[in-house]
Amino acid sequence: MINQDRLWNRLMELGSIGKQESGGITRLSFTENERKAKKLLSSYMNEAGLKVYEDTVGNLIGRKEGINQDAPVVLVGSHIDSVYNGGNFDGPLGVLSGIEILQTMNEQGITTVHPIEVIVFTDEEGARFSFGMIGSRGIAGTLTLEELQNKDQQGITVAEAMSEAGYDPLLIEQSVRSIGSVKAYVELHIEQGKVLENDNLSVGIVTGISGPLWLKFIIEGKAGHAGATPMNDRNDALVAASQIIQLIETESAKTGTTVGTVGQLQLFPGGINIIPGKVEFTLDLRDVNESIRDEVENRIVAGAKILCEQRGVGLQIEDLQRIAPTLCSNEIQDLAKLACETIGVEPFFLPSGAGHDCMQLTNLCPIGMLFIRSKDGISHNPAEWSSKEDCADGANVLYHTVLQLSNN
Amino acid sequence: MINQDRLWNRLMELGSIGKQESGGITRLSFTENERKAKKLLSSYMNEAGLKVYEDTVGNLIGRKEGINQDAPVVLVGSHIDSVYNGGNFDGPLGVLSGIEILQTMNEQGITTVHPIEVIVFTDEEGARFSFGMIGSRGIAGTLTLEELQNKDQQGITVAEAMSEAGYDPLLIEQSVRSIGSVKAYVELHIEQGKVLENDNLSVGIVTGISGPLWLKFIIEGKAGHAGATPMNDRNDALVAASQIIQLIETESAKTGTTVGTVGQLQLFPGGINIIPGKVEFTLDLRDVNESIRDEVENRIVAGAKILCEQRGVGLQIEDLQRIAPTLCSNEIQDLAKLACETIGVEPFFLPSGAGHDCMQLTNLCPIGMLFIRSKDGISHNPAEWSSKEDCADGANVLYHTVLQLSNN
Ligand SMILES: NC(=O)NCCC(=O)O
Ligand SMILES: NC(=O)NCCC(=O)O
Repeated sequence: MINQDRLWNRLMELGSIGKQESGGITRLSFTENERKAKKLLSSYMNEAGLKVYEDTVGNLIGRKEGINQDAPVVLVGSHIDSVYNGGNFDGPLGVLSGIEILQTMNEQGITTVHPIEVIVFTDEEGARFSFGMIGSRGIAGTLTLEELQNKDQQGITVAEAMSEAGYDPLLIEQSVRSIGSVKAYVELHIEQGKVLENDNLSVGIVTGISGPLWLKFIIEGKAGHAGATPMNDRNDALVAASQIIQLIETESAKTGTTVGTVGQLQLFPGGINIIPGKVEFTLDLRDVNESIRDEVENRIVAGAKILCEQRGVGLQIEDLQRIAPTLCSNEIQDLAKLACETIGVEPFFLPSGAGHDCMQLTNLCPIGMLFIRSKDGISHNPAEWSSKEDCADGANVLYHTVLQLSNN
Repeated sequence: MINQDRLWNRLMELGSIGKQESGGITRLSFTENERKAKKLLSSYMNEAGLKVYEDTVGNLIGRKEGINQDAPVVLVGSHIDSVYNGGNFDGPLGVLSGIEILQTMNEQGITTVHPIEVIVFTDEEGARFSFGMIGSRGIAGTLTLEELQNKDQQGITVAEAMSEAGYDPLLIEQSVRSIGSVKAYVELHIEQGKVLENDNLSVGIVTGISGPLWLKFIIEGKAGHAGATPMNDRNDALVAASQIIQLIETESAKTGTTVGTVGQLQLFPGGINIIPGKVEFTLDLRDVNESIRDEVENRIVAGAKILCEQRGVGLQIEDLQRIAPTLCSNEIQDLAKLACETIGVEPFFLPSGAGHDCMQLTNLCPIGMLFIRSKDGISHNPAEWSSKEDCADGANVLYHTVLQLSNN
């Protein structure tokens, strides 16, 4: 068993870095707050007896050697960057649990065949540059110099921010891990949803990560005088949009696993006494099963076309992002189930609706994820919370999963 | 019969003042463009043999004396201010037709018992100060010094703009017409809708002006992670709003006369992957019959409450403006019907969905309105158009209506 007080105290200590007056945490990549957080994490890694180093995209790594030095490494970790005014658990839990399990192994004199590294990924959230998972892209070898041209709100590019923080953007290739060099990646994270809470469970084993499909709907109706245009002579783009929004809800809910969300909507011209002539809205559609997501997408698109035709309004749909779901390794899920049984928590399987760094690593190695219960399902918010006991349960399941992974 | 070429040529000449590169007209109140337009109108009034004067709120007036100098005056008119990038007919048609009928009378040596004045109302549209019908409020005696504190986009108040244009805001009371001094007000305007076009008619007699009720709906749901929140655990403010938007359409359409429009909608926080936690939208609900409008409002509000309760979201509804419908005088409608028969156009009655200056005059005198066909129902747009022949039909119906009104 890991040391749950140490884990909790470190969570609280790390949580003081970047703390806002609101109580939330703002810890963006390549900033002073991130540097401070990494300095603190390095000290924990040193206490844990790890060899500490950074790669060229700024991932901070603590390494515990294996009996077989050349065996592929088992990676555990997460991120310590936050969204603006975010919470204290999203990211830090996985990083500190990774350090905690290695420190526990060292204290208990446990050696493993494979080396184990705890990795603190650079900028998972994408809050600063509207582009995230930078560290995981870096080790996967998919990060491009073009992507480093994304800018923050001050117009500073990722590349410029890297340089300023002491990293050479031209050396990012050196971070790439070769195929075969990584045995597995396992991450402990908060659920960010209410499934575990509703089922009264502390820990869940993730079966896969939903792939977000982001679409933009553009509806072209006819603007008109709100007073002078009879109801039966309108081509109101907003009424058409509102029917599609309901169709999205109905079709998404049907499958039981899909989630569909319209999070942005703008209408034009936007006068209180003018019939909306144009509406644009986004759809975020996710499922762990891509073919189910495809089916739901098709039903929504077909239904939307019919609705728009009936109303005499135009419909255009643009792809913004189409990311395939990521399946978690069955082997790691099985090991996690065993680990649950070992420490006495009920094994429970659930998909992840939120995206995570592991999505970037699917071509590099098998991946596994564990969740712990989030109070009220809240995340990206100062009210984000998980109990000390749940954190400990999650870390212990991680511990036993990684122990087995690194000895097989 | 009026001189249709002269009317048309004056419409085109006036239309060159304030013309934008887009082809639209921007002629705001108390600006150089308005001054130029009034100068041109004064010259037309002089040609028409009228006595020209301005009142203290800037209404330009051309007067033709009656046989009985002390008899109440018959007012005809409209406005020559425009919205930003508006059309060439909305307002000018009524003003120029008023001048045209008086010039025709003078040319034909026609005298009337009552004096007749053509009035060019200051700022009907409200485009500059988001507050309109200034001239008609001025003669009705409802314009207040407080209202003159409304500001334009540059922060200039109505009072300041008046002073700059040479009017003393402290003298607005002098424009007030006393009860009994005005026999009637009659206005010719473009329809701004498609009813006449769809019925293949040039002229319509207005039965009443819809009263706009403006409401603001505020829906409070729960923001959440678009990926991590299952469909059955959401309180999505936008899905609730979209149901209400449809309810508004259904309930408005039921009566056959009511129109309901959601013209503005904003959602919060507005992240592509965040469930909308709050939605605000406006409703513009109109009917010429206030009790029908009340019924529709009640059904919408009751339905919205049930929908929001079912979805576990909060609902607040605020009044923004609640204007009673205005009925047109039956006597004037009858005279207009006679006038239609005299000049050989089919009498046709229709309500006005758009608001007009006459709404301000209901406590001053009986009011009447005539519409002519608008191409495609378009107004407040450079594409606004009515044919020369329809303009002439309208002016002739106005002519014979006013002739009878001013001799009775
Ligand atoms: N874990 C997490 O919040 N990821 C980013 C948000 C998303 O999944 O869209
Ligand atoms: N006639 C006209 O366009 N009036 C102002 C617009 C409105 O009726 O809301």
